Amino acid sequence: MRAAVTRGGQLVVGEVADVTPGSGHVVARSLAAGICGSDLHALADFTHFAGLLDSVGVPALDPAHDCVFGHEFCAEIVDHGPDTSRTLPVGTRICSVPVIVGGGGVEQIGYSNIFPGALAEYMALQEMLLLPVPDSLGTDMAALTEPLAVGEHAVGLSGLVPGQPSLVVGCGPVGLAVIAALKGRGHGPVLAADFSPTRRRLAEAFGADEVIDPAASSPHDRWSSFGVARTVTERAGAAMFGQAITDPVIFEAVGVPGMLQSLIADAPPHSRIVVVGVCMHSDTIEPFMAVVKEIEFRFSFGYTPAEFATTLERLGAGIPGANLLVTSSVDLAGTPGAFETLRTPGEHGKILAHP
Amino acid sequence: MRAAVTRGGQLVVGEVADVTPGSGHVVARSLAAGICGSDLHALADFTHFAGLLDSVGVPALDPAHDCVFGHEFCAEIVDHGPDTSRTLPVGTRICSVPVIVGGGGVEQIGYSNIFPGALAEYMALQEMLLLPVPDSLGTDMAALTEPLAVGEHAVGLSGLVPGQPSLVVGCGPVGLAVIAALKGRGHGPVLAADFSPTRRRLAEAFGADEVIDPAASSPHDRWSSFGVARTVTERAGAAMFGQAITDPVIFEAVGVPGMLQSLIADAPPHSRIVVVGVCMHSDTIEPFMAVVKEIEFRFSFGYTPAEFATTLERLGAGIPGANLLVTSSVDLAGTPGAFETLRTPGEHGKILAHP
Repeated sequence: MRAAVTRGGQLVVGEVADVTPGSGHVVARSLAAGICGSDLHALADFTHFAGLLDSVGVPALDPAHDCVFGHEFCAEIVDHGPDTSRTLPVGTRICSVPVIVGGGGVEQIGYSNIFPGALAEYMALQEMLLLPVPDSLGTDMAALTEPLAVGEHAVGLSGLVPGQPSLVVGCGPVGLAVIAALKGRGHGPVLAADFSPTRRRLAEAFGADEVIDPAASSPHDRWSSFGVARTVTERAGAAMFGQAITDPVIFEAVGVPGMLQSLIADAPPHSRIVVVGVCMHSDTIEPFMAVVKEIEFRFSFGYTPAEFATTLERLGAGIPGANLLVTSSVDLAGTPGAFETLRTPGEHGKILAHP
Repeated sequence: MRAAVTRGGQLVVGEVADVTPGSGHVVARSLAAGICGSDLHALADFTHFAGLLDSVGVPALDPAHDCVFGHEFCAEIVDHGPDTSRTLPVGTRICSVPVIVGGGGVEQIGYSNIFPGALAEYMALQEMLLLPVPDSLGTDMAALTEPLAVGEHAVGLSGLVPGQPSLVVGCGPVGLAVIAALKGRGHGPVLAADFSPTRRRLAEAFGADEVIDPAASSPHDRWSSFGVARTVTERAGAAMFGQAITDPVIFEAVGVPGMLQSLIADAPPHSRIVVVGVCMHSDTIEPFMAVVKEIEFRFSFGYTPAEFATTLERLGAGIPGANLLVTSSVDLAGTPGAFETLRTPGEHGKILAHP
């Protein structure tokens, strides 16, 4: 079958082995596949990326062998493999957490040498993990379940309480997913900051209560309006005199070196910083400043199957702005060009491939 | 009066101005003063230290002017200044959070160019912050209130729940303070790790349930015994199948560069790391590893007046091991030598000065 395959460090469109479903698997036709920031990192330096996965004990990925990316997808069942219950008939559109169990154990769909991701015509999926896509939900929207679930998880991890103010730094797909989850749970005020006017418009469409251009003013200038103490001394004074204290939650959704220290330096004391952006390089911080300000970091990764299912439900019910997130789509042949485009995303949101 | 004063980057014993109490102040004779790791940092590079304080908005400290250290102390009231209630009579032994309000606002006792710390014969203290020392509690023990309160605060911040396992990395005064607070609240199992045999013995005396020499075996090898998943895959599997999950709390009480990343690399996934050690230099971490393992950092600093008071009460009731913490004492003339000794603490715990 045809696929956009990462081979020898290059993304090429060519032939890969057909899918043979194992026990408990279905064969699905890939209908729409999103390109993720992690895919861009992996393609740019696959050896480094595989090393990172290895460093955290994720099953080995050999950069010397073929890998078909694509862990954000909507697909359609075309065949049932052995030992399947066939509850969902052929033709059902489905989403799934990108995990499959093969003979060698659990594999990550999209980062596996064995199971192709959604940038191929067909893929094997684990039947027990499949979720049917509601008829009312378009295929492209359904393919956003995975990236939006990342926001659902981060907001769950944040422990945000009603009325507590939050700031989303970076309004790319990850930041927008956080905004969608925040507003889906009725949180606010939600501030959102991004240098790009397009991304700020997207943040507004997703429901951010205020959008801020950091080139014009620091988002941290806004905290006082929401009762947040700006200095260690101010907060300590409020605590000593028993005044009400409001600490903010900040979602870091940029994922480049320097972001953590810029938040340690600029965020209010006692900020809880939920790190959703995935920074794949070493980073330097000033612990003394974090200590004195009693900053808290919660690093967020992935989602649970329940959060994934909740996200698909939310999409089915309609997530404001989600329809604006996909700014372009390509066929398999256009995939290498899309990766090239996203290296400098400019005003792009999500690009989908339709294999 | 005489003091050990930091002057021109050197700690010298000499004359400083006598204490003149301001509104709401008492004059107190310093009976015992502990030397803290922060004092050692400040003396080693006062300009850098003052810059760190300035960077977090703590009132300016000018390294070009005299500063008398000493923010851990027990003292005795010798006079009441203007606008005081005189509830505690002359002769009362007292402790206090090291804060005083002068004409220029709040100052940190021990890091002020205006108010001398406890490495002087006398000091001004804020009457409303004074706590009387119970008759049954020795003066040297009372001087441990401040460093032990740091542990009380860190344990409060940790959110540790009954039965949740914890590890204290580093059993110097900060780590021992954490152990005292953990055991004071009935927590356990408490593991404690330190390279020094003396410090491991102290950790045992303070009530640690297990002490570990990291040169012999990694403390992280012990987690499986307490039901903690060691790998991302193992924990994800347990979560997916609804098994009980136990995540650990780790107290970082060393405070040197490299500690945070060593914990990111070696700690179990979903560890909550409470950073109590005060690292005064830049530090480098690998955010990707922290993200995938969903590590949490809570940076802890100081204590509230209530936590300070609780600690003094705990000392009055008896904290196991606390009597072993003071390994040496000096007079004012011996203070510069004590600072020199503590630069390579070896088997030393806390050194007290008796001005």
